[in-house]
Amino acid sequence: MKNIPLILMGCGGVGRQLLQHIITTRSLHSRKGLYLRVVGVCDSQCLVVTRDWLNNDLDDSLLLKACQVKQDGSSLSILGDFDKCQVYGHSESQGKIFEIASQLGKSTGLVCVDCSASSDTVVVLKEVVHMGCCVVLANKKPLTSTMEDFDKLFGYPHRIRHESTVGAGLPVIVSLNRIISSGDIIYRVVGSLSGTLGYVMSELEDGKPLSKVVRDAKTLGYTEPDPRDDLSGMDVARKALILARILGRQISLDDIKIESLYPKELGPDMMSVEDFLDHGISRVDGYMQERVMKAASNEKVLRYVCVIEGPRCEVGILEILKNSALGRLRGSDNILEINSRCYKEQPLVIQGAGAGNDTTAAGVLADIIDLHSLFP
Amino acid sequence: MKNIPLILMGCGGVGRQLLQHIITTRSLHSRKGLYLRVVGVCDSQCLVVTRDWLNNDLDDSLLLKACQVKQDGSSLSILGDFDKCQVYGHSESQGKIFEIASQLGKSTGLVCVDCSASSDTVVVLKEVVHMGCCVVLANKKPLTSTMEDFDKLFGYPHRIRHESTVGAGLPVIVSLNRIISSGDIIYRVVGSLSGTLGYVMSELEDGKPLSKVVRDAKTLGYTEPDPRDDLSGMDVARKALILARILGRQISLDDIKIESLYPKELGPDMMSVEDFLDHGISRVDGYMQERVMKAASNEKVLRYVCVIEGPRCEVGILEILKNSALGRLRGSDNILEINSRCYKEQPLVIQGAGAGNDTTAAGVLADIIDLHSLFP
Repeated sequence: MKNIPLILMGCGGVGRQLLQHIITTRSLHSRKGLYLRVVGVCDSQCLVVTRDWLNNDLDDSLLLKACQVKQDGSSLSILGDFDKCQVYGHSESQGKIFEIASQLGKSTGLVCVDCSASSDTVVVLKEVVHMGCCVVLANKKPLTSTMEDFDKLFGYPHRIRHESTVGAGLPVIVSLNRIISSGDIIYRVVGSLSGTLGYVMSELEDGKPLSKVVRDAKTLGYTEPDPRDDLSGMDVARKALILARILGRQISLDDIKIESLYPKELGPDMMSVEDFLDHGISRVDGYMQERVMKAASNEKVLRYVCVIEGPRCEVGILEILKNSALGRLRGSDNILEINSRCYKEQPLVIQGAGAGNDTTAAGVLADIIDLHSLFP
Repeated sequence: MKNIPLILMGCGGVGRQLLQHIITTRSLHSRKGLYLRVVGVCDSQCLVVTRDWLNNDLDDSLLLKACQVKQDGSSLSILGDFDKCQVYGHSESQGKIFEIASQLGKSTGLVCVDCSASSDTVVVLKEVVHMGCCVVLANKKPLTSTMEDFDKLFGYPHRIRHESTVGAGLPVIVSLNRIISSGDIIYRVVGSLSGTLGYVMSELEDGKPLSKVVRDAKTLGYTEPDPRDDLSGMDVARKALILARILGRQISLDDIKIESLYPKELGPDMMSVEDFLDHGISRVDGYMQERVMKAASNEKVLRYVCVIEGPRCEVGILEILKNSALGRLRGSDNILEINSRCYKEQPLVIQGAGAGNDTTAAGVLADIIDLHSLFP
């Protein structure tokens, strides 16, 4: 049995779901001679490592316990009560990860999995890649900081996977990488890559006012606690930046033209979430309704998309032909259309659920398995 | 510079296009530190190998010459006139491939690329995989013979790639494999996987008689020389079998229910291609027109699809809702819809050009590059 040791950073929704996927797929992977050995898990406050991490792992009961602790909103430090593991505070955890990486990196390809939403992990990730480890990301932040950080992470391109940073588990990154390595020339990438904004746009199309749609989306749990985090377009811009960088563009977030669905006067530093929802966002209702109607008069619909074409990289609302894959998109599905030499007249289209912890964690797990063959 | 040695089997349209892709992407791959070293090429009659194949390769001028020779309909044996290479006749070529494989397999991961349409290559492929080589297939036949052959080829699953056996360069296989390794449970796979039959079905939808559509398709170069090779459904059945086996079904071609678009009385052993086109296929016009109209009366269209669901694996005509991704498919595009635990309400959809030498060869090249990271 070949074992794949890993350390999980971030035990939010996706991280917890990943641990659960790992446990439920044990028999599937053992039939293929693989064992996923979770050596450590960490949250923002501490790192929990199995004792004798050279040979042992955090067993499934402890992993389930960790999930429960995080679900309850507590810190992993509670697990210090268990004999089987050791807990390191924030100040020690980085050093401990480096210690494990230096022992397990080159020989076993220790996988550092980042399911956090933090900008801070990039420091650790850059270092462990250099030490021979593999890196799997659901977290977009490490890939969307400086170009220098990005290049460092991709210093060993075959040891990094990040499918779930764009379109959750949809095979977006793997498809783009295949097209690029085949020498095909990509002319244009257009995508609707936010389940939240996909939902908002298709509800607007049905004639509902923006303010109601946003309130509904929040109630349904489709938005971040502050819906402006979605409506600002920043999350889509990060995804666009990741795609653009894969396509070879040496750009940063600042270079992307981003259209926000609300004006600055309604921003987080101007009013609370409650004020925004109760009487802020409704000020945009009329303007948005006009745009929807104008588009409809041309057999078009509004979609919040990212467009990468030549030097152009932008995210915002576009009028899209009703009778196209993108125009027909409904609800929270994601879609990516790629036009290239091989896909010239009709684009290559990838479409499906692009959000949700289950799908996102499934993409992360597929990445981890994909990497295993690199190591003996 | 890391070099990836390879032997190409089959120099038909896809094989020739692959050689051209390899040549035109040299600078792209050299920027990534890779060099594709073509050690040998073979057709059904002979094998051409570079002299000193441990270190050398067939240079680009010779590869272009090989393409020209095959384009002209000649045998590669003509290349025996060149000093730089050695030509082995059919009886010696298998032994020579094994000799090269035993030297280069384990150390460099020699890639044996099968772009032929032959059933005979499987003997060689099974052996070289066992010797440590990688295998990349555009040829469906080795994966659709016995289950025993299939299992032998997949004895080292990370050393075999075959994206271009289904949907040309579309990321169909890689996506299915990712879904499976993530532990997601696939309920249903439905696809329109023949550009030819896709064209036929969408033309029928427009009210044209089958006989005219088939004649047009042949004139446009969309069909095999004998269009019955497409219309029999056998090619789609092979694709369905490959998908079903990836999904873990232990089945053979005989287990697949296949609907042919023409009755036995119009088969190749009953009449010539000319007779079939001139007054054979028109006998089916009325029947097919009725089916098209019956479907239309229910807001449906006919599509020639493969369906894999539970124990069911069949290929044939299905009535499909007009207002679905599959129902909206036009022309020769391929489409695959996957329903799984993660893609439950809406399927994961992959759509785009699924035929053509350019796209197919691009898929093969992406597979070759994908394998390189396995070797130091």
